[in-house]
Amino acid sequence: MEFDTIAAISTPMGEGAIAIVRLSGDQAIAIADKLFKGIGGKRLKTVSSHTIHYGQIIDPKTEQVAEEVMVSVMKGPKTFTKEDVVEINCHGGLVSVNRVLQLLLTNGARLAEPGEFTKRAFLNGRIDLSQAEAVMDLIRAKTDRAMNLALGQMEGRLSKLIRKLRQEILETLAHVEVNIDYPEYDDVEEMSHRMLLEKGSYVKEEIEKLLRTSQQGKILREGLSTVIVGRPNVGKSSLLNSLVHENKAIVTDIPGTTRDVIEEYVNVRGVPLRLLDTAGIRETEDIVERIGVERSRQVLKEADLILLVLNYSDECTKEDENLFKAVEGMDVIVIVNKTDLPQVIDMDQVHKLSKNHKLVTTSLLEDKGVDELEEAIASLFFEGSIEAGDLTYVSNTRHIALLNQALHSIEEAIQAVEMGTPIDIVQIDLTRTWELLGEIIGDSVHESLIDQLFSQFCLGK
Amino acid sequence: MEFDTIAAISTPMGEGAIAIVRLSGDQAIAIADKLFKGIGGKRLKTVSSHTIHYGQIIDPKTEQVAEEVMVSVMKGPKTFTKEDVVEINCHGGLVSVNRVLQLLLTNGARLAEPGEFTKRAFLNGRIDLSQAEAVMDLIRAKTDRAMNLALGQMEGRLSKLIRKLRQEILETLAHVEVNIDYPEYDDVEEMSHRMLLEKGSYVKEEIEKLLRTSQQGKILREGLSTVIVGRPNVGKSSLLNSLVHENKAIVTDIPGTTRDVIEEYVNVRGVPLRLLDTAGIRETEDIVERIGVERSRQVLKEADLILLVLNYSDECTKEDENLFKAVEGMDVIVIVNKTDLPQVIDMDQVHKLSKNHKLVTTSLLEDKGVDELEEAIASLFFEGSIEAGDLTYVSNTRHIALLNQALHSIEEAIQAVEMGTPIDIVQIDLTRTWELLGEIIGDSVHESLIDQLFSQFCLGK
Repeated sequence: MEFDTIAAISTPMGEGAIAIVRLSGDQAIAIADKLFKGIGGKRLKTVSSHTIHYGQIIDPKTEQVAEEVMVSVMKGPKTFTKEDVVEINCHGGLVSVNRVLQLLLTNGARLAEPGEFTKRAFLNGRIDLSQAEAVMDLIRAKTDRAMNLALGQMEGRLSKLIRKLRQEILETLAHVEVNIDYPEYDDVEEMSHRMLLEKGSYVKEEIEKLLRTSQQGKILREGLSTVIVGRPNVGKSSLLNSLVHENKAIVTDIPGTTRDVIEEYVNVRGVPLRLLDTAGIRETEDIVERIGVERSRQVLKEADLILLVLNYSDECTKEDENLFKAVEGMDVIVIVNKTDLPQVIDMDQVHKLSKNHKLVTTSLLEDKGVDELEEAIASLFFEGSIEAGDLTYVSNTRHIALLNQALHSIEEAIQAVEMGTPIDIVQIDLTRTWELLGEIIGDSVHESLIDQLFSQFCLGK
Repeated sequence: MEFDTIAAISTPMGEGAIAIVRLSGDQAIAIADKLFKGIGGKRLKTVSSHTIHYGQIIDPKTEQVAEEVMVSVMKGPKTFTKEDVVEINCHGGLVSVNRVLQLLLTNGARLAEPGEFTKRAFLNGRIDLSQAEAVMDLIRAKTDRAMNLALGQMEGRLSKLIRKLRQEILETLAHVEVNIDYPEYDDVEEMSHRMLLEKGSYVKEEIEKLLRTSQQGKILREGLSTVIVGRPNVGKSSLLNSLVHENKAIVTDIPGTTRDVIEEYVNVRGVPLRLLDTAGIRETEDIVERIGVERSRQVLKEADLILLVLNYSDECTKEDENLFKAVEGMDVIVIVNKTDLPQVIDMDQVHKLSKNHKLVTTSLLEDKGVDELEEAIASLFFEGSIEAGDLTYVSNTRHIALLNQALHSIEEAIQAVEMGTPIDIVQIDLTRTWELLGEIIGDSVHESLIDQLFSQFCLGK
């Protein structure tokens, strides 16, 4: 395919030592060459592929030096997009990199849309859709495990599995077709039925296996929404600080809102916790008080994990009991904190209130019990199985939805066979399964979906 | 010189399409080669300089793929540091880039200190100190003009001027020495005196010329601290939004404090305004009310520019008069806003209160008068002279301090000549001037100063 030439800043915005402006397309080298002044009059048009060149970017209008740069020239198809790619390394800084970008845009390049480089890699056939999605996951990964997940998907592990299943379905369909076309044998129908049942069950099991990984996959990819609740002074901010301190938090402003919503990611034994409303806890030590009862119920509802903190040196109050009621049916870890102080709390009562929830006692002041707490968090969601590493996890919501639909249609196919429905009706269900699986890797997807998917990418990728 | 091999992340932290880990030193290529797995077993050790290679970073312990990368190999001395440099381009994202960095650090590299790459460029003689400082300015530049300033300095414009002055002084000293050594002529003393006076005055004038650019240079480099004041409801946040809207603000968290202090940079006709306490204005529409009278006087004192807003459709109150008193003697632009409403304000009174301050009437609602306001801001500090472009500006506080000291010592030398002080005393003053100028370009500076200077750099540069 042939596209116009696009340009974008590919490094994060902010002050840094190096910033990169990336160009991709037929005219990438020609446009860069127009602005580039190398040593001894070197021209980018004539250099070899995959080489680096020092020089200056000159504004052709004013003939003034716009920036001192290193330019990487990479000729297609051995590039990220399979097109000619030029990367211009500038001194970091917003003005510098914007100036270079502006010059590229006024000299023939078009500003890339978010994700357009990766979209081209997909459209030009270098990667499939699930691999493209993995590129984004890789960038957003908050833990090592999440990154391995994305890397595996980018290498095509999921794609390979999906392709294998689709191949099985295709072969089955072909066999059935042959049987229908040559019905000279008596047992044709029986054979077809047996094969359909056998292959259908196999595909169903494989899809179910993948779906079983999806809960963990989603957690690894997106993090566990975690809320810390408890009465004032039970040690909520100590707990927060302890988790953050031990694990280094990554604080991210959610784009679009200005410094209102802050997400704090904490990596607990490979499980990324997305701590909600920690600003509230930091400031007032009381989420419920700060955001109001109604709103805090809402926050609780959105949470995947509740850390409910009690005070070892105080009685369980009506308030504590209300908290237990509010989190009923959710994943809760009960933390009885302040074991460094004399016991006042009635542990029998606590056990009764906690029901099946995990219970950990801590003295955050003396740094006791934090290991147990982290262990409890990790095992609540992963029961040790994740360490294996070789499993292919499904983590993407779109993939999960498609797998569920594919499961549904393969189940219908199996049911149809069992009910003795005519083979051509079964074929329709099977074909539908084949198509749904295809959508995961992008073999049969609408253009509008592709546009929407890539628009979620960050600029310059 | 020979150093160990250092590594650091050279792109800003955050989510982006590409992140770079940079290595510099003797072992840079060997260390990268240990971790790199290219296509067809390609080894980085054997590749040509200034070439780019696609492959994977493998953790040698686990033999697992850590990241998919593009590696640039650049052999010294034609590199930023004059040493062997390897740049590893990873997929953006914190985990990804940290993982690659960690592997480099466990395989022989040392984590670079802030500014250590640039420091090596300086210590290895590729750039002088003022050029190194310009690298940092380039990164921090908030406007085009600030960037041009830094680029000029990086190209060595200031260095050239300083070198020329030092050469003049050196030649003068040599001449005087010769005259002293060969006192066979009668008029030796007179000749020496005349020459000293002439050359000394020349150096003095050149230093003064440079210092005259320093106020503007500092503003271009650091931005004008600007405060918007006025009673509630006169349109302070409209003014803020209007300035930001027209000029695109760069919002930066000041590192170290978490989301407490926010600086907002606005580029008004090339003059960077650093808007102070805009969060206060945005939130409560009243800086004085919010931060208390005492503190707000403090904020006013720190400001380079005050934008004092009055209400066209209301009378001047006692409060307004107090504001005028509070900003007495400062650079103020008076803005009479809301000309879209019927006039109530007594403009004669406003003129009287404004004294010599510039006065602009606006209707921010109808977008009127904003051009005039921006013009007033730009001309208040630059009277059009900056457009010339070829002037060498001194903008760095360290340079300004050294130039002032150099000016002082050359003045002492001139005075000494005029008073008929013995030549060898004058020589001391001249030598001191020569040394002070040398400190600007780093020809005669202490190691501790160098360490301190480079520690202000960002990591990875």
